[in-house]
Amino acid sequence: MTTIIAKAAAVGGGVIGAGWVARLLLNGIDVAIFDPDPEARRKVGEVMKGARRAYKQMLPGGLPKEGRLTFARTIAEAVADADFIQESVPERLDLKHKVLAEIDMHAPANAIIGSSTSGIKPTDMQVAMKKHPERLVVGHPFNPVYLLPIVEIVGGEQTFPEAIEVAKEIYASIGMKPVVIRKEIEAFVGDRLLEAAWREALWLIKDGICSVEELDDIMRYGFGLRWAQMGMFQVYRVAGGEAGMRHFMAQFGPCLKWPWTKLMDVPEFNDELVDLIASQSDDQSGKWSIRELEKIRDDNLVAIMEALSKQNKGKGWGAGAIHKAYTKQLGDLASKKKPAASKAAVKAKAAKPVKKAVAKTKKKVAAKKKG
Amino acid sequence: MTTIIAKAAAVGGGVIGAGWVARLLLNGIDVAIFDPDPEARRKVGEVMKGARRAYKQMLPGGLPKEGRLTFARTIAEAVADADFIQESVPERLDLKHKVLAEIDMHAPANAIIGSSTSGIKPTDMQVAMKKHPERLVVGHPFNPVYLLPIVEIVGGEQTFPEAIEVAKEIYASIGMKPVVIRKEIEAFVGDRLLEAAWREALWLIKDGICSVEELDDIMRYGFGLRWAQMGMFQVYRVAGGEAGMRHFMAQFGPCLKWPWTKLMDVPEFNDELVDLIASQSDDQSGKWSIRELEKIRDDNLVAIMEALSKQNKGKGWGAGAIHKAYTKQLGDLASKKKPAASKAAVKAKAAKPVKKAVAKTKKKVAAKKKG
Repeated sequence: MTTIIAKAAAVGGGVIGAGWVARLLLNGIDVAIFDPDPEARRKVGEVMKGARRAYKQMLPGGLPKEGRLTFARTIAEAVADADFIQESVPERLDLKHKVLAEIDMHAPANAIIGSSTSGIKPTDMQVAMKKHPERLVVGHPFNPVYLLPIVEIVGGEQTFPEAIEVAKEIYASIGMKPVVIRKEIEAFVGDRLLEAAWREALWLIKDGICSVEELDDIMRYGFGLRWAQMGMFQVYRVAGGEAGMRHFMAQFGPCLKWPWTKLMDVPEFNDELVDLIASQSDDQSGKWSIRELEKIRDDNLVAIMEALSKQNKGKGWGAGAIHKAYTKQLGDLASKKKPAASKAAVKAKAAKPVKKAVAKTKKKVAAKKKG
Repeated sequence: MTTIIAKAAAVGGGVIGAGWVARLLLNGIDVAIFDPDPEARRKVGEVMKGARRAYKQMLPGGLPKEGRLTFARTIAEAVADADFIQESVPERLDLKHKVLAEIDMHAPANAIIGSSTSGIKPTDMQVAMKKHPERLVVGHPFNPVYLLPIVEIVGGEQTFPEAIEVAKEIYASIGMKPVVIRKEIEAFVGDRLLEAAWREALWLIKDGICSVEELDDIMRYGFGLRWAQMGMFQVYRVAGGEAGMRHFMAQFGPCLKWPWTKLMDVPEFNDELVDLIASQSDDQSGKWSIRELEKIRDDNLVAIMEALSKQNKGKGWGAGAIHKAYTKQLGDLASKKKPAASKAAVKAKAAKPVKKAVAKTKKKVAAKKKG
């Protein structure tokens, strides 16, 4: 697959926004970014530097020509001629409303708008979009965006199914693994799981059962290695042995009733807890700067995906299969095997369903709501 | 480090028990196993076959001479001359009591007894041991035991600190990463985190938010890749950016108050839920047999650890550093670089603290309880 985005816009250039910018630019896509932070240029530059470094390891033969990055003075200017816009502003509904309304006002009618929100329902956001709310999707990535393939796609009540289809194609075209969430809920799937684990972890630290380093070690020398390649259910299916999933469920289902978690409550989030965790984190990682840790993390992620790309009889497994296809695509792009003409053709083809979607009457949306 | 175990015993030969047997045998250690299951020999043989296959990939130069496996007719016979005994019987307190009492009765006084329980407190188990309860520790591994390095060590009220020290040495000597849990709680640390995620996952499936395959994909294309190399806290420290952990906590702490989890309750565990999950699991993984999935899992684990072993300027990172040392140790053992004499010497040295520990008066235990 080659990219189907001719021109992208990013609104918000924090860790997540800059991660999107890096992924897009490294795919040779021009990006216009709007971020009112006077430090935005420096911050995006630093994420870009880290991303470039990681991609050089993925592509020893050379990177594709980078897209051009422009800093826009307004949202209107940034989104004016974009066919894909990713919003990554802080997680406040009022701010999302303000920003999405402005994007909607100025973006081309057939542009897809993805929101990086990690928790707010698209239905609650798209109410602010007066022109084309039907082309808003949540496209929730995980940090670092330029390396981790996953993106959770969530549609709201007004989102057209066609917009979700095009969003899937767009994200897949830049090396990602889109998973469409079936029903809207706050925090979707990934962050629900992370929040559950985080809450339990806070209890474990607060109660002095272990330190943050010990907890991290239990993950990274243990089940983290499993979850990098199979998820929870597939791992348990295997653990069930010859009898499989049903046997596992029968055996471990009752454990849910055991006094095995602090499920009832959230620990009080006070200065004492923050101090405890921050100082333990210093003990664990204070010897590295954040920049150094980012490099270590990125090197490890590339190495793991590379390793997985050789599994499954050379076809690649899980993130490794995506990684294999992605690095091939980027390598082809670097050696310009794909003529620019076909890029435009693919784009036109992909854009069609959205145009059609946008043209559809509100009746359809109403029907979908009932269905 | 070379092994400090001359003769080991395993009581229980299910997936976990057989995994211990495999790890021990592949380290050249003789093991006597007791398992009343008439199928035990076949089941252990199959796990052993899988483990041997995985180790061959880790050690293309050849494996160490395997230890000798004997099937004992009684617990007494299995543990008679063992200096390390690992108990892996089903998770019922009455059964643990019966089995541990028998092990305690017949094992040499200075043998260390590890229990594979994934949830029962050692204090609740060691009450059944009339002779030397002070040498019982929980040594909780994760499946597959022959590959995953982590082992959670937990002492009970009667456990001597010296026994924990020796247990650490023993587990480390067979390539594992021991983490000592600071306070006894049910399910310790790893399974608390797993239970929290599992409970949330059951809700997500039950409510139709996603399928088991989609949930697994969100893990293995996303945060699973992070947790294979850094844990939750180190990942978040990096995500906090230049301001680090304190910034992250300040930013995301309030999320705990959002309606982001189903923390209040456990979904009703009925046939409908089991059917839903089992049939979705069939859709996801039915194309592979459990044996095939085990091979895929093991290949992936070896590849990931291998990849991590080359990181951190060649010193290895996390599980990769352990993997590097472990494969070197096994390689040395295979080429018999370590004379057998030194093995006995190391063993004698390591065993000393336990002998001393056992000799100590009950006063010490009483003092420890107060402290």
